[in-house]
Amino acid sequence: MNFFDHFKKFLLLQNLDGFLVSNFYNIFYISGFRGLAPDERESWVLILKDEIFLFTDKRYEGKIIKNKSIKKIIYEDGKNIFDYLKNIVLEKNIKRVGFEAEDLKFGEYNNFISNLKIDFVPYYFLIKKYRAKKTEEEIELIQKACQIANECLTEVKKNIKPGITEKEIAFKIEFYLKNKGLDLAFYPIVAVDENSSIPHYDTKDGNGIIKNNSVVLIDFGVKYQNYNSDITRMFFINPDSEKINVYQKLLNIYEKIIKFFIDFKPQSYKEVDLYSRELFKKNSLPFTPHSLGHGVGLEIHEYPKLSFLSEDKVENNHVFTIEPGVYFTSKWGARIEDTVFYENNNIKLLTSFGKDTFIKI
Amino acid sequence: MNFFDHFKKFLLLQNLDGFLVSNFYNIFYISGFRGLAPDERESWVLILKDEIFLFTDKRYEGKIIKNKSIKKIIYEDGKNIFDYLKNIVLEKNIKRVGFEAEDLKFGEYNNFISNLKIDFVPYYFLIKKYRAKKTEEEIELIQKACQIANECLTEVKKNIKPGITEKEIAFKIEFYLKNKGLDLAFYPIVAVDENSSIPHYDTKDGNGIIKNNSVVLIDFGVKYQNYNSDITRMFFINPDSEKINVYQKLLNIYEKIIKFFIDFKPQSYKEVDLYSRELFKKNSLPFTPHSLGHGVGLEIHEYPKLSFLSEDKVENNHVFTIEPGVYFTSKWGARIEDTVFYENNNIKLLTSFGKDTFIKI
Repeated sequence: MNFFDHFKKFLLLQNLDGFLVSNFYNIFYISGFRGLAPDERESWVLILKDEIFLFTDKRYEGKIIKNKSIKKIIYEDGKNIFDYLKNIVLEKNIKRVGFEAEDLKFGEYNNFISNLKIDFVPYYFLIKKYRAKKTEEEIELIQKACQIANECLTEVKKNIKPGITEKEIAFKIEFYLKNKGLDLAFYPIVAVDENSSIPHYDTKDGNGIIKNNSVVLIDFGVKYQNYNSDITRMFFINPDSEKINVYQKLLNIYEKIIKFFIDFKPQSYKEVDLYSRELFKKNSLPFTPHSLGHGVGLEIHEYPKLSFLSEDKVENNHVFTIEPGVYFTSKWGARIEDTVFYENNNIKLLTSFGKDTFIKI
Repeated sequence: MNFFDHFKKFLLLQNLDGFLVSNFYNIFYISGFRGLAPDERESWVLILKDEIFLFTDKRYEGKIIKNKSIKKIIYEDGKNIFDYLKNIVLEKNIKRVGFEAEDLKFGEYNNFISNLKIDFVPYYFLIKKYRAKKTEEEIELIQKACQIANECLTEVKKNIKPGITEKEIAFKIEFYLKNKGLDLAFYPIVAVDENSSIPHYDTKDGNGIIKNNSVVLIDFGVKYQNYNSDITRMFFINPDSEKINVYQKLLNIYEKIIKFFIDFKPQSYKEVDLYSRELFKKNSLPFTPHSLGHGVGLEIHEYPKLSFLSEDKVENNHVFTIEPGVYFTSKWGARIEDTVFYENNNIKLLTSFGKDTFIKI
């Protein structure tokens, strides 16, 4: 069942006349329309039972939207969405409209309820959760983004040697992609030595430089036709036995998590998280202070969530990361991350760059 | 008066015990703390009368915040902001807290009011409006971002000739900046011929290529130490008299708008917008379908707003763009944009790249 058939059914079941979509990525998912600024509400989508509207302003007058069945409404001078919604509500006798409660701002909500005399009903993560199950076309795009990440890392690895800075490596990743007309999924995290102990280290802010026995963490993603990949690899230059030991343990944990999906057929991601906690405990390592993984698609962080708080079921056509990490504050840290595709109790690695990353110089 | 003194007074006047800051840029403005993902709520700030808290998670444990008077709270495993807020509310006997109604999501608001038994009071654009008046330090950073934009455009102009694509020019801008360890303020708009008639044209989406008599619109910005610049210039290759004529009219309008600030000392930006409408009318040109300008700072679009709907007063230390444009749908368009600094009825151009941009080949 495609999105619109599914959604029509949802409207009927929930006794809704319509649903207002505000989220930038959801609007793109539904209509193929993408504005320039994700946080500036350049467009809205209203899904009714028999019609879908896209609202945007004159700056986008000439822009074509891919989904031809959607009616595009361009605001005239000085008008806004309410001028048009009021008419639609009247014409179509609309009484109850759902909205994206995780996305709509408090102030926007107030604007809607004061401008329109309808029931405005909050729903949480509805379309975002729907997006977790990828279509074949989406999986192909993510797979391509992952392949390019593998190729990029192969090139970038050649530069990992003493004297090069974190920023230079990040720029090499960026240049590799931009030169191919592609984009970063997010600004690369390149973290050397003590910086690698900060899971969300900001490479733009730092001054790390690779030394003769450095630990190097590289976490980056590729955006290919709006779809993302996500991968983290470690590179150890002339590592001591302690680092090798910790990394081997982490790699072992990583492999056991993958195997868990295949052998134990978990129903929920929570089970996976709890299992991984046991593994860290057994190995006497501090548990990963971030989630064990996250869905990847149009957004770099999306559903499903892999954590002990997650309520998400393991389902076919999910694409997500598995990224156990271990961090020794102010010293160093390590993370192994792949983007994977789940189907029928099997895990397929989409990012496949090698994990044997000890460099002897 | 600095921000905190100003804010303490505000809390007293409004009978508030505290104010919750959710917006990414406002959090940076106050604390100097910047997470990686502007839209993922990686941190919060709570301003009380005698103390300021920054809340974030373990991923940022090792990250130093610049403002030393701020107390950093790192969530322990499985905890979130509410676990800490509840204690603070009890300890400090907090009853009324303001929040950023334009930023907080409906769902987040619901979470706050159901977790905390306090009055939660909406305020609109409070800190965002405060940020419109720049400090000397901020002005210096924006000025630097503008200077670099001028230098960048000088280099990039050399490449504007038949055969080069929009994307290639955009990449040259990006490469110029990244190579200096700087960043784009936003992805450049490079729009050729009919694409220049779409004010928010998406260069990533298009396939424009410069021809022998092309119109080229370049709109880009530089981010320097978190502060932005914004500039648009036109380049006409072997233009016909009609295009020269329209551009000269637009340039004339642009210059009259600047002069209006100096000669007529407008009190509000609305006056400037209304004046510019007259100018377009007199010149028999269609009026700019986007706002006449916008503040520039930590964000590329901020206060003040220059439009007929704007309620913003003209004040010293404002930094904003002036960007009249004229667009002929499906044919071509032109825009002239500078980032300027306003003080004592004077306008100082911060972006100063030449506007005489007819190229003969």
